Amino acid sequence: MAKVLSDIEIAQQTHLEPIVKIAEKVGLTEDDLELYGKYKAKISFDAIKRLSKNEDGKLVLVTAITPTPAGEGKTLTTIGLAQALNQLGHKTMTALREPSLGPVFGIKGGAAGGGYSQVLPMEDINLHFTGDMHAITAANNLLAAAIDNHVHQGNALRIDVRRIVWKRVMDMNDRALRDIVVGLGGKVNGFPREDHFMITVASEIMAILCLASDLMDLKKRMGDIIVAYDLDGNPVRARQLGVEGAMAILMKDAIKPNIVQTTENTPALVHGGPFANIAHGCNSVVATKLALKMGEITVTEAGFGADLGAEKFMDIKCRFAGIKPDAVVIVATIRALKMHGGVDKKNLQPENLEALEKGFANLKKHIENMRKYDIPVVVGINRFLTDTDAEIALLTRLCQDYGVDVALNNCWAEGGKGGMDLGRKVLQLLQQPKTPYKPLYDVNDTILHKLEILTKEIYGGDGVILEGKAPKQIAELEKLGLDKMPVCVAKTQYSLSDNPALLGAPEHFKITVKDVRVCTGAGFIVCQTSNIMVMPGLPKVPAANRMDIDENGVITGLF
Amino acid sequence: MAKVLSDIEIAQQTHLEPIVKIAEKVGLTEDDLELYGKYKAKISFDAIKRLSKNEDGKLVLVTAITPTPAGEGKTLTTIGLAQALNQLGHKTMTALREPSLGPVFGIKGGAAGGGYSQVLPMEDINLHFTGDMHAITAANNLLAAAIDNHVHQGNALRIDVRRIVWKRVMDMNDRALRDIVVGLGGKVNGFPREDHFMITVASEIMAILCLASDLMDLKKRMGDIIVAYDLDGNPVRARQLGVEGAMAILMKDAIKPNIVQTTENTPALVHGGPFANIAHGCNSVVATKLALKMGEITVTEAGFGADLGAEKFMDIKCRFAGIKPDAVVIVATIRALKMHGGVDKKNLQPENLEALEKGFANLKKHIENMRKYDIPVVVGINRFLTDTDAEIALLTRLCQDYGVDVALNNCWAEGGKGGMDLGRKVLQLLQQPKTPYKPLYDVNDTILHKLEILTKEIYGGDGVILEGKAPKQIAELEKLGLDKMPVCVAKTQYSLSDNPALLGAPEHFKITVKDVRVCTGAGFIVCQTSNIMVMPGLPKVPAANRMDIDENGVITGLF
Repeated sequence: MAKVLSDIEIAQQTHLEPIVKIAEKVGLTEDDLELYGKYKAKISFDAIKRLSKNEDGKLVLVTAITPTPAGEGKTLTTIGLAQALNQLGHKTMTALREPSLGPVFGIKGGAAGGGYSQVLPMEDINLHFTGDMHAITAANNLLAAAIDNHVHQGNALRIDVRRIVWKRVMDMNDRALRDIVVGLGGKVNGFPREDHFMITVASEIMAILCLASDLMDLKKRMGDIIVAYDLDGNPVRARQLGVEGAMAILMKDAIKPNIVQTTENTPALVHGGPFANIAHGCNSVVATKLALKMGEITVTEAGFGADLGAEKFMDIKCRFAGIKPDAVVIVATIRALKMHGGVDKKNLQPENLEALEKGFANLKKHIENMRKYDIPVVVGINRFLTDTDAEIALLTRLCQDYGVDVALNNCWAEGGKGGMDLGRKVLQLLQQPKTPYKPLYDVNDTILHKLEILTKEIYGGDGVILEGKAPKQIAELEKLGLDKMPVCVAKTQYSLSDNPALLGAPEHFKITVKDVRVCTGAGFIVCQTSNIMVMPGLPKVPAANRMDIDENGVITGLF
Repeated sequence: MAKVLSDIEIAQQTHLEPIVKIAEKVGLTEDDLELYGKYKAKISFDAIKRLSKNEDGKLVLVTAITPTPAGEGKTLTTIGLAQALNQLGHKTMTALREPSLGPVFGIKGGAAGGGYSQVLPMEDINLHFTGDMHAITAANNLLAAAIDNHVHQGNALRIDVRRIVWKRVMDMNDRALRDIVVGLGGKVNGFPREDHFMITVASEIMAILCLASDLMDLKKRMGDIIVAYDLDGNPVRARQLGVEGAMAILMKDAIKPNIVQTTENTPALVHGGPFANIAHGCNSVVATKLALKMGEITVTEAGFGADLGAEKFMDIKCRFAGIKPDAVVIVATIRALKMHGGVDKKNLQPENLEALEKGFANLKKHIENMRKYDIPVVVGINRFLTDTDAEIALLTRLCQDYGVDVALNNCWAEGGKGGMDLGRKVLQLLQQPKTPYKPLYDVNDTILHKLEILTKEIYGGDGVILEGKAPKQIAELEKLGLDKMPVCVAKTQYSLSDNPALLGAPEHFKITVKDVRVCTGAGFIVCQTSNIMVMPGLPKVPAANRMDIDENGVITGLF
């Protein structure tokens, strides 16, 4: 039996074409590119402007059931589907999120698809890539330094140091920085205060990068950020510290989309990657809109399950960007559905039709949810060797009973060829006439009402409980006139509810919102149901420990 | 009268040639380059290997008198001289340090030369450039996270948390991070302890990058770093945490030298930039040695005055790299010499021959010092409009009496043309036969003896006082067998002594060493005479506040 290759071995065996050649396929000349080595490039604003005259292609959103430890393979499916559509003769782009450096060294070890459905060069994409994350880190921390410096230099804005809400960031899994005290050591080091580091992707600047329409919009939004409140309770914005110009300088290249290639040498845009809980979890608007101008079809993804990523894609990203998917793929695995049906992770191999039927409730709820946005849906099942014919037949029947087509994928092992069935079914959906954009709620509703709509329509719960600081925070935002924005619910990704233990499709629960804060730069209101971890830690044996590089520059241990 | 243009305006008016064209001039093909946009590139290891068969060119080191607030213009002279030598028909390279992002937003606003003697694109070089600083930040902080994680996960190495010597870094001027407490918030966040952030260029990884011969040497040196001591007092090295492979992956591109161009479209290598006090203050060995293979002449620089940068260039960098300068240029200004002669900064304009003669003592001492290394010297004076003919005549006579030639430069306003006189005089020095490398001390001497030699020979003092922890630290290093390395004295750059108030050429003083710590990765022992600021702060009105960028991507406020 042939040895099963690891992702990085497959990546290293793949023949890469120069990115200049890849870009030519979608109408870009060498002059349109800012190369980062031979296989990565940023796309110039001039090129974006020129291509903006093209017609928009079709947009396919890949989302998933509620994630389980069994794994689903959303990025893999996104890339595999795009490769399949290309094989089927349709010029297809992918628009993906960039991985964050920190988690690469923690548990994940990499996040650029897998097997024969990867974006390449995966080593670079998983590491510094084109420096976007570093630019965000620098811009974020310049603003943080400017705040403490302002206070130290006399505090003309009367910033309440107890109410500085802007946090420092680092692109590293470093639990020791979660809760810290800064400014110790006496007068020359400023005023001591409690502070916190987040991981870079949790920065509001990442969310802004992904929602901004261009560099000037980015600058304006960064100026809008509320960094603190003054002693009278008035918001203090980044603009008042006068550093949004310098921040925009730091972000001047980061706002330009990155082009790379898939394992099958088809072009892919990989740009931006905000958290899917405290932010909206989709790649950048700039990249998605550009992809629509480049390809006949664009396949993109949203983080976590459809209740988080896809909901925010629809209610936040599409609202700001003026776009709407023409079709949605919901990714699932039979193993994961069996977990939703109550099977323990250790017992997923044996056939279990009862658990599968029970766990189908989760998939069904996500299908139902996507239909609320008036978008046609297809289910994409990532096949495992352990899936039995009877299980596949049952799932297919359950979906068909519910009026939804199912496609079986094998994109990990076969690349685009393994996604042909899904590709054909997506093409069928794309024949349907486009319907108007239909968000779930009106931004002018109250925060509570917006939360109630989400809870009832998407999560399947009965209502919302405002607890702790939340009622006061909402009252304050209303007073400040900052409540007329989309809400961005930060809740566990492991359940449709806010309780990670409730798998399947729970009912008769309430969502408890404990913390409400406004991201005036990004333009949404983050409503947290629990303490969301914004700075991961390293595990007992970090992925970093098995990584190495030899004298020829060959890397091992990424996957 | 024509408006005097700012550095960035001159930079933006300069016609840049594609870096591919620039690189061709020194024997590099497009395949040898990893492009970062059109005007910056990294040079591949294959190209370095190929060029290593070339003969070495001549090496010119640019250093300076003891710095004053009046300014000297060392980088400016380095670039101007290289341009002049190119105009004189000699294929000349420059090998410079990269600026650090943090200070760009603080006081400096930029550090890539000035006027018509800049390296370009100055906006990029002053900002993210090719990501070297970000790579160092990430590698440094991965190691830091691994230390705290090791302790949190059971501390098998028995690390003494009171003796963790590895610090986190950020490329930002942020005084609030100088003294902090990390690991607060309870069990899940690890063990609380005192910690400190430094600016990225102060990281030992920066020093290692600049001294390593290649990627494998870099990895080995990073593994050698002492990060802490265990409860028995034994050193704990990065290697024991198993992350040097991952750190090397992060540094795989950073170790490759960067090629850019000067205002006169001559090639320049800009790579690495360690502190000139707690580290050795010179650009990378890899870049300097490569430049020697590319050009007939290479002009390079060392940080601060000749007692700091040039001394470390000779005793640390040359020792490790097996190179030796063929000539030294000591940069001075008449204004700065008058300050050394006792004139206040406010009264530098009027002619003052007496002060100039008195201040000449500082220049004379630096000339004398450079001669101890058996290298021919020329003095390069950066002209100011206020310099009088009598002052110039006096300085010329003083130097000639001392057997040293003086050249007057106007490289800011005239580029290479303004450095022709200096260029011709350097060419004369390069006619002299090369003498063998002659470091000032033997690394096998005791730490105290090495410090005494430096103090007596270079600083002009009488002896060394070991104070506070220093005697115990030295005894410990001797016990561990870690004392047979060059010493890297961290003292004020504003005086030949360790007292910044003593200008000119002070005598009859002792140097007080208060802190001694070993950098086993870099391979030197840092001896601090006082608390060296390793994390700058922002001023009342940071340079960041006047920076901006418009919708065409045009930047203002850098200089």
